[in-house]
This record gives sequence, C-alpha cells and structure tokens, in this order.
Amino acid sequence: MENATTLQLDPEANSNQTIDSQEKILTGDRATGSLHLGHFVGSLQQRVQLQYRYAQTILVADMQGLTDNGHNPQKISANILNVVADYLAVGIDPLKTTICLQSAIPALAELTMYYANLVSIARLERNPTVKNEIKSKSFGRSIPAGFLTYPISQAADITAFKATLVPVGEDQLPMLEQTNEIVRRLNHIAQQDILVECKPLLSKVSRLPSVDGKSKMSKSMGNTIMLSASEKEISKAIKAMYTDSSHLRVSDKGQVEGNVVFTYLDAFHQDQDYVANLKEQYTAGGLGDGSIKKILDECLQELLKPIRQSREKFIADPSQLIAILKEGTERSNDESNDVLAQVKKAFGLNLF
Amino acid sequence: MENATTLQLDPEANSNQTIDSQEKILTGDRATGSLHLGHFVGSLQQRVQLQYRYAQTILVADMQGLTDNGHNPQKISANILNVVADYLAVGIDPLKTTICLQSAIPALAELTMYYANLVSIARLERNPTVKNEIKSKSFGRSIPAGFLTYPISQAADITAFKATLVPVGEDQLPMLEQTNEIVRRLNHIAQQDILVECKPLLSKVSRLPSVDGKSKMSKSMGNTIMLSASEKEISKAIKAMYTDSSHLRVSDKGQVEGNVVFTYLDAFHQDQDYVANLKEQYTAGGLGDGSIKKILDECLQELLKPIRQSREKFIADPSQLIAILKEGTERSNDESNDVLAQVKKAFGLNLF
Repeated sequence: MENATTLQLDPEANSNQTIDSQEKILTGDRATGSLHLGHFVGSLQQRVQLQYRYAQTILVADMQGLTDNGHNPQKISANILNVVADYLAVGIDPLKTTICLQSAIPALAELTMYYANLVSIARLERNPTVKNEIKSKSFGRSIPAGFLTYPISQAADITAFKATLVPVGEDQLPMLEQTNEIVRRLNHIAQQDILVECKPLLSKVSRLPSVDGKSKMSKSMGNTIMLSASEKEISKAIKAMYTDSSHLRVSDKGQVEGNVVFTYLDAFHQDQDYVANLKEQYTAGGLGDGSIKKILDECLQELLKPIRQSREKFIADPSQLIAILKEGTERSNDESNDVLAQVKKAFGLNLF
Repeated sequence: MENATTLQLDPEANSNQTIDSQEKILTGDRATGSLHLGHFVGSLQQRVQLQYRYAQTILVADMQGLTDNGHNPQKISANILNVVADYLAVGIDPLKTTICLQSAIPALAELTMYYANLVSIARLERNPTVKNEIKSKSFGRSIPAGFLTYPISQAADITAFKATLVPVGEDQLPMLEQTNEIVRRLNHIAQQDILVECKPLLSKVSRLPSVDGKSKMSKSMGNTIMLSASEKEISKAIKAMYTDSSHLRVSDKGQVEGNVVFTYLDAFHQDQDYVANLKEQYTAGGLGDGSIKKILDECLQELLKPIRQSREKFIADPSQLIAILKEGTERSNDESNDVLAQVKKAFGLNLF
C-alpha cells in the first residue's frame, strides 16, 4: 500500500506529548483467549505508546471471534474480561484509550449490512488474507458466511470510528484495501466524503515465534507464554524452548538464527549490547543453552511480574472491568451512531 | 415442507373473528416499487383477511431491497412510503397489523450477524431460491455478499418477531427451511427453545400473469397494472392484454387457457358463474376479445377506483404515513430487542 506509515516505537514516549488530532487509531483483538507475549511484542507495547500520541480506540471483537466459533461461543464470552484485564495490566489507560465491546455497538452490525451490498462474493474470495485463513482452518466451502464476510465487518469497525491509522502486519494489508474500496463506493453513492480512507500503521517488529519455534503461537498449543503466566509457567516454557538441535555440548558452536531463546532476548532484553555479546560467545562455542535460558528467565520474570500482579488485581474486580468497558462502549456508540446516520442518509434511509 | 398450512381465503372474514393468539404472521415486501395487481392477488388480499385472525407484522424490507440495488438506493428510498400507502389503500389496518421499517430495527442486523456464523457459504449456494435468483439476475460470482446472504437476513426477520406462519409461494419454501435450520442450531447452542420454528402459509392462488402473458410482472416492464393506475392506464393495459393469437374473428372458436383476460376475470370478477358462462361462449365461438376486455375493464375499474382514491389521500399526507410506520417500528423494536437479548445471552454476550 502506497501510503503506509511505519511505526517507530519511541522509548521516550510519555504523557507530555501532544495528541495529533489529525489521526485516529482503531485496533483490537478477537476475544478468543487471554493475551500472550506475542501480543505484547506485536501490538500491546505499541498501543501503550500510541495512546499518548493519538486518539485510540481498542475494540474487543467478540462478534468477530464468533465467526469461526459460532458453535463454541463460550470460548469468546469467557475471554472478554480477560482481554480487558490484559490491556489494563500492560498499561493501556482507559482515560486515554477508548476500550469498547463490539457486540454492544449495534451500528457496527448495521454498517456491515449496508456495506455487504457493495462487495461481491468473488471479491471476498480473492482476498489473500481470507484465502490463507480459509486454508489454514481447512474450511473449504463449509466456511461460515460470517467468516467469509468478516472483511466487511472490519470495514464497518474501521469506518464507524473514522479511523485513519490501523496498526496491522503486512499480511493484513488486503483487509485495509477492502475497507478503502468500500469507503470510496460509499462516498460515491453519497456524493460526498462521509467516510475516510485509512492507512496501515506498519510495525517493524517481526512476529515472535512460538516456544517450540515451529508453529503459530497459541494458548491451546501450549507453546506460548501468557501475560498471566506464573513464575513456574514462565520457567517451564523457557526450559522447553527450542535453541539449536545440533548444539549438544557447551563447547559446541551454536547457531543464533532460528534459536528461539535469542529471538526472545532480542525482543525483551533491555541491554541489546549484552545480547550481541552473548550471541558472539554462543556462535564461537563455550556458552551453554542452560546459561542463555537462565538469562532469558530472569529477563521475562522481571518483565511479567508487575504485569501479572496488576492483572490479578483487575481480574479480582470484574465489576470495575465491566464499568470500564461499558463506559468506552457508550462513547463508541455515540461516535458510530453518528457515522451510521450519515451512511443511512446516503442510502436515502433517513425517514425517522 | 411437511407442516405447511394452506390458506383458505374466507370471504366472510370480518373483525368479529377472534384472534388466534397461538400463531403470529410475518410478511412483507422489498420496497423496490409501488405494488400492483399481482401483489393484490398474491398477498395483499390475504393480509387484509389475516389481520382479523392473527397477530400480523408487515415488514417494509428496505435493507433487503438494497441487496441488489446497493448502487441504486433511490429505487428503494423513493418507494418506502408508496408501499405503505398501497397497504393502507387496500385495507390493511395499522391498528390490527403492525407495519414496520426494516432499516429502523437494528436488532435485525445484529441477529443477521449472529446467524451468519451458523450457516456455511456452501449451504447458501445450495438454496434453490437463491440459485434461481442468481441465475435470473445474471449475477454469477459478482453476486453482492448481501444478496447471497439474504436468507440469513430473512431468518433474522422471521425469528425477531417469533413468527410461526409465513405466507409464501412454493418457490420460497427453501427460505423457510433455512430459517428453521438456524432456529434449531441456535436453540441447540442456547440449550433451550428461545426461537420458534415457522411454518409456511401456502396460498392456493396461482401467480397472476403479466399483461402480455409472457414475462414476469414488473412495473419497469410496463406489463402490469399498478394499484395506483388511472382509469386510462387500466384501459390501456387491458387493450394491450394477450388473449388468443389465433382468435381473429368474433365467430372463431377461442382458447381460454393462457388467455390473460380470462385469467384476470377468474382472479377479480365477483360473479364466477358469469365468467364460466363467458368462457363457454368464447370457446364455442361468437364472443369477441373486445367484449371480454370491456367486461374486465368494468370489473377492474370498479375494484381499483376506491383503492386509487384512498391511496391518493394517503400519499398526499406523508407525515401520516411516516407516523404510522414509526409507531409500528417502535413496537417492533421492543419485540425484536427482546429476542436479540435472548440470542446474545445464548452466545454468552450479555455483560451489559
């Protein structure tokens, strides 16, 4: 996409920065499980910083979570508050970031219905992101209608908040192309620019590998470290972490590439010079897996301890979590109902 | 469908009948144009009678109208009040029948989103009604997503009102099968019967042919008689009506089968013995097309005059039409929000 903005994480970001009122961010997560270190690296850290720079809305996408869990809805409902607790625990501030619940914002469903008339089935089936997901989930033609059409629902989410910047990975760019196509069609019908096109906010951070170094990180695969992980769970995961299968003795020359421990040290260790030094030693031979795992263990225990403790406090008070989510949702309803009213007017459906 | 109920039109139907509170009717029209004699015979007459027997809701389906008019929305918006005026003009009584507007009932869009997770694309593509419509509209794979998925939206409409009886033609039976499949799936997820299955209310009335006897009746084809037709328009249409192409002289033996004038006399003339007599004369030879057309002209002028006059009064007062539609829609929102709340609860999405 031509207009991609690349996000530079700024370690100095703080609340003294002025908000750029020109840009509006929408981001979110399907509420299919508690969040893990992959989310922390891939999105949560950025969101904490972004909230100081931009108006930011985070959508807990429970309805989208249902698109491939229609017959297993408790997987979604059980995780809504977990996800909100994860957000708060990592430092997302509900006074700066609007946190809202998709299923409690009716305008999102209504916008989806209107936009669905402007997108062909063929167009949806051509979407590379959807294609890949259909393949990876082995759906074939048994794909639920809600799943094939979820790019339309995403367009509803993005446009309902007039988001201009959407943090995504490269693989999600086709979703934003679809959104912008809908925006242009709708504006053409309205004969004025009632919706705004969005730009991707690309992160330079590469995806964190799973603990076993093989598959996609997922809670159910047990190959990740949850933000809620206990000290023991962290240590256990690091012990099981893939390093270099030919690195049998401490004296052997080890490989850094594909070594999950080093990838995690790259991602989380505060002192990257120290990590570079470790890599040299490891490559030359003479540094054991036990040693680098111990270093990573200390690093992750230090990172996750305050997050876990904070999370525990939030989880212990569900009524507070609900109140935060409700307050953000109410604000979101005001915003999205306004956009819906304009879209309905564009279709001439504003009798009352 | 096993449990089909066949509607027997009862000429004695009147307001003294007691309402059958066990059954609830949902019916409606896509707001793609004013209504014509085909609608009158096919559905409007029945609805007038049904309102004395059952709780009846008529949905002005503007959103469904958009599923194949997304880029031409004024075709829908311009016709909403026309359709309501048609209803009132033929005797649908807003004190007995709830008349409501689809786009002003957000629960219908939300229910559609939930149900879309329980229906596969393959299932939608197998639907014979949808298949035929895709073919007749030459959509191919360029079919709008909203059009392929409209059986899901219909299921939302039917279930939102807990309708038990849905007046349909034989060709619409697959739509009700789809609805009942969704009902069973949802009830299975809820582990209780929160939605009710519906039965078709089949009409014995066969479809009224177009004036030219060939194509589907449609306003744009100019081969129909609108409820709003002027005296001149009625006469002109009857003059152009197909009879029997080999019936050249009055003395020729004429054919009744396929003769549109006789089909209309069957449908509209008050004295069917008289019509049977005409048919005998026509078949034997000695009755001219001009004569039977004159009889039909008198019959339709008499039928349509009070409807046209009543319609003109309603159309002259849009604020009254809007008030009626708004009142019905508000009542419908109460009903459908209640069903939506139960469906959301079934999915565990009832945090607030």
